[in-house]
Amino acid sequence: MSRNTDVSDRVAELIEELGVDAVVTDPILIDNYRWDWSRSTATGMPLAVARPGDTAQVQTAVRWAARHRIPIVPRGAGSGLSGGSCAVDGCLLLSLDRMRAVEIDRSTRVAVAEPGALNVDVKLAAAAQGLWYPPDPSSFEICSIGGNVATNAGGLCCVKYGVTTDYVLGLDVVLADGTLVQLGGRRIKDVAGLSLMKLFVGSEGTLGIVTRVILRLIPPKPAASTIVGYFPSVTAAAQAVVEVGTTMRASMMELMDQASINSVEDLRPMGLDRSAGAMLLAQTDAPGSARDEELALMERVFGECGATEVFSTDDPEEGELFCAARRATFPAAERLGDLLLEDVGVPVPLLPRLLGGIEEIAAEHQVAIPTVAHAGDGNSHPIVVYDATDPDSTQRASAAFKAVMALAIALGGTITGEHGVGRLKRDHLADQLGPEVMALTHRIKTALDPDGLLNPGAGI
Amino acid sequence: MSRNTDVSDRVAELIEELGVDAVVTDPILIDNYRWDWSRSTATGMPLAVARPGDTAQVQTAVRWAARHRIPIVPRGAGSGLSGGSCAVDGCLLLSLDRMRAVEIDRSTRVAVAEPGALNVDVKLAAAAQGLWYPPDPSSFEICSIGGNVATNAGGLCCVKYGVTTDYVLGLDVVLADGTLVQLGGRRIKDVAGLSLMKLFVGSEGTLGIVTRVILRLIPPKPAASTIVGYFPSVTAAAQAVVEVGTTMRASMMELMDQASINSVEDLRPMGLDRSAGAMLLAQTDAPGSARDEELALMERVFGECGATEVFSTDDPEEGELFCAARRATFPAAERLGDLLLEDVGVPVPLLPRLLGGIEEIAAEHQVAIPTVAHAGDGNSHPIVVYDATDPDSTQRASAAFKAVMALAIALGGTITGEHGVGRLKRDHLADQLGPEVMALTHRIKTALDPDGLLNPGAGI
Repeated sequence: MSRNTDVSDRVAELIEELGVDAVVTDPILIDNYRWDWSRSTATGMPLAVARPGDTAQVQTAVRWAARHRIPIVPRGAGSGLSGGSCAVDGCLLLSLDRMRAVEIDRSTRVAVAEPGALNVDVKLAAAAQGLWYPPDPSSFEICSIGGNVATNAGGLCCVKYGVTTDYVLGLDVVLADGTLVQLGGRRIKDVAGLSLMKLFVGSEGTLGIVTRVILRLIPPKPAASTIVGYFPSVTAAAQAVVEVGTTMRASMMELMDQASINSVEDLRPMGLDRSAGAMLLAQTDAPGSARDEELALMERVFGECGATEVFSTDDPEEGELFCAARRATFPAAERLGDLLLEDVGVPVPLLPRLLGGIEEIAAEHQVAIPTVAHAGDGNSHPIVVYDATDPDSTQRASAAFKAVMALAIALGGTITGEHGVGRLKRDHLADQLGPEVMALTHRIKTALDPDGLLNPGAGI
Repeated sequence: MSRNTDVSDRVAELIEELGVDAVVTDPILIDNYRWDWSRSTATGMPLAVARPGDTAQVQTAVRWAARHRIPIVPRGAGSGLSGGSCAVDGCLLLSLDRMRAVEIDRSTRVAVAEPGALNVDVKLAAAAQGLWYPPDPSSFEICSIGGNVATNAGGLCCVKYGVTTDYVLGLDVVLADGTLVQLGGRRIKDVAGLSLMKLFVGSEGTLGIVTRVILRLIPPKPAASTIVGYFPSVTAAAQAVVEVGTTMRASMMELMDQASINSVEDLRPMGLDRSAGAMLLAQTDAPGSARDEELALMERVFGECGATEVFSTDDPEEGELFCAARRATFPAAERLGDLLLEDVGVPVPLLPRLLGGIEEIAAEHQVAIPTVAHAGDGNSHPIVVYDATDPDSTQRASAAFKAVMALAIALGGTITGEHGVGRLKRDHLADQLGPEVMALTHRIKTALDPDGLLNPGAGI
């Protein structure tokens, strides 16, 4: 029997087990599934895409893959930025895009979501019941909860409200052999047994397939006031971030450098100051009179750190305009060329050194690196712009990409604060973690996925 | 060579490697180390107590134990309530009580603490720099940070500010073979690699020995106003907790039942209403005018839920008097007899059913079960009182202890919300987790501690 016959027999078996509607084999349709937003050209060609409709079908697909030693690449909405859900050759792409139910339990203040539900679906369902799900990646309108769990996604409000793992109360996970485990539940505190649930959050599909998530919700999002400050340099703006953080917790603290301001202004003109070296966009949602006090404090600190212009607004719609501009950074940068997107983080006081260092790296390698940052968390997104058709540009971009990660590690930081390691940063993980932690990681991986079938080549 | 000679040779080897000051062999002195606050009579007799002074000495002790296949029971301040740091026969008791340095990095807003440092040491050191470490077990003046990490300890303010794991940014851990791994660091967001750090939090010494903790600090603790309400029954008080939680986040929401009120009042009279069925003790630390609004909201809800008396105070000292009364519950209960301390948790809306059910269990088994609760989290501490010299009383207490855990599990809850499984609840862990999660737990345990030397019989 030839290899091709062998493969088609196996796919036929999967179709028989899952039903023809749940398996995509047409190469043209498959192509829609084998990329993520990193547009990594290194993506492979799957045997098939499985689109299970429920947990039992996920178990069936995983058991099929385990039986035939076929690698599985799980996938939510494909909005990842590190290649974590890009296909590998000969894999089963396990797309959770059909599993998108969201149920709100108002009295217990939890959302029970399937992994394919979008972040915005959870937010809207919660809001309809007078509750709030805080984590807010810039891509919240298009990214899935399953992907958020896989990467332990952050966002803009996380500087005050925490990241995805802080809201995960329960997970249903299908393990590499098809076993379903149910971890946690609708209780807020639970220390019975190991923190297995937290281990799966951020594991990028390498330890199991999440099929249901119980998320903690909190009382409604308070109204926020917005403050915008323009600074002569990124380091001056970063210094203001450090100073503010010593006395208050802003509910948002975002930084855009000059190149980011200009690329966003090119995409959707709204009168941002193109001449500024950097812009800080911050919010406070403190209640009552405290909001004015916190605004006044930020205005004073911005000024002390050299801001050339500062203004604030209590109007939520005006504030949202600035937030939308900030979230448009990535789409705006896509118009500049091909991109390598960084996600480095450092201890907050070292943010000025990180951002200053990135400017030096850009100059040294003669590449543009527009940068935005969840500055209050020390997490920044330098975007290396290059021309993929030009080998010299590609080589300089790649060198700059590596240099930025090396800088973050040298500053006691991380190569990824919220996007995940995926496939694009995997070669650099050991530089950050060191051999002992890598060895420990592989012991856990081997214990849970002895055949190495779950998202091989990604995450760890 | 007889077994005793063999043992004394091994201990002599340990003394040679660690130095005579770091090894306790006198049985009278050892006795100080082999108990925790559960006073479990099942505690064993260790070969010796090691008191390492630094991480390298911890590695030396662990390697010695690994070489000779000697079990290790790690121990912080011995204030645990579930027998997790009670000795097993022939073990090495690894006491971290000499490693208690605390260093505050003000600009990065972290504390770097050795595991033997007390929770209060971290709080005070942070406060001296204008910062705050929130987690506040009732035992915060006598419990160690290492123990807090081992159990993922909660406390009174955790209903708003989260539990220990939410503040752990970095851990140094000595693994079962003596390898040191450094996980996380001084950065707030980091998703590079698996969430190994979170796996060690709450692992009760079964996966490794924590030798250094990096803890996130936040801006200073805001002033709080306190509200006290007396209710005719625990279920009425619990219902008020549920109602308040739907619209605001109290910074404390504690419940004491009639028996707890009376035992505390016996210990230190302060005029609590002995006739009330239950008391709620809540705080709000919202800033500015919002504090008054939240106080008014709680006062209204308490009244609607049947409170017979409600009063509030903005005076921090008066508020602290009530908090101290609440924290005195356990010492007060110790005067009532021998105790089996529960730590069950349920989804918050089911708290009235849990507390009502506990009253029924007490009546059925003819035991007193005074109960206090971190009610806002759904986490409660029923205290089964009995007479250990009376076999019948002991049998009834044991049956009631099990019945309370079974009730919590039946309500979708947990057998332990913050104290850990330890040795006292270990037989009941599988009832909550089920066979699949237990099997997964053992795969992780075997991967990290193949010889089963780390805290055998505890936690998992």
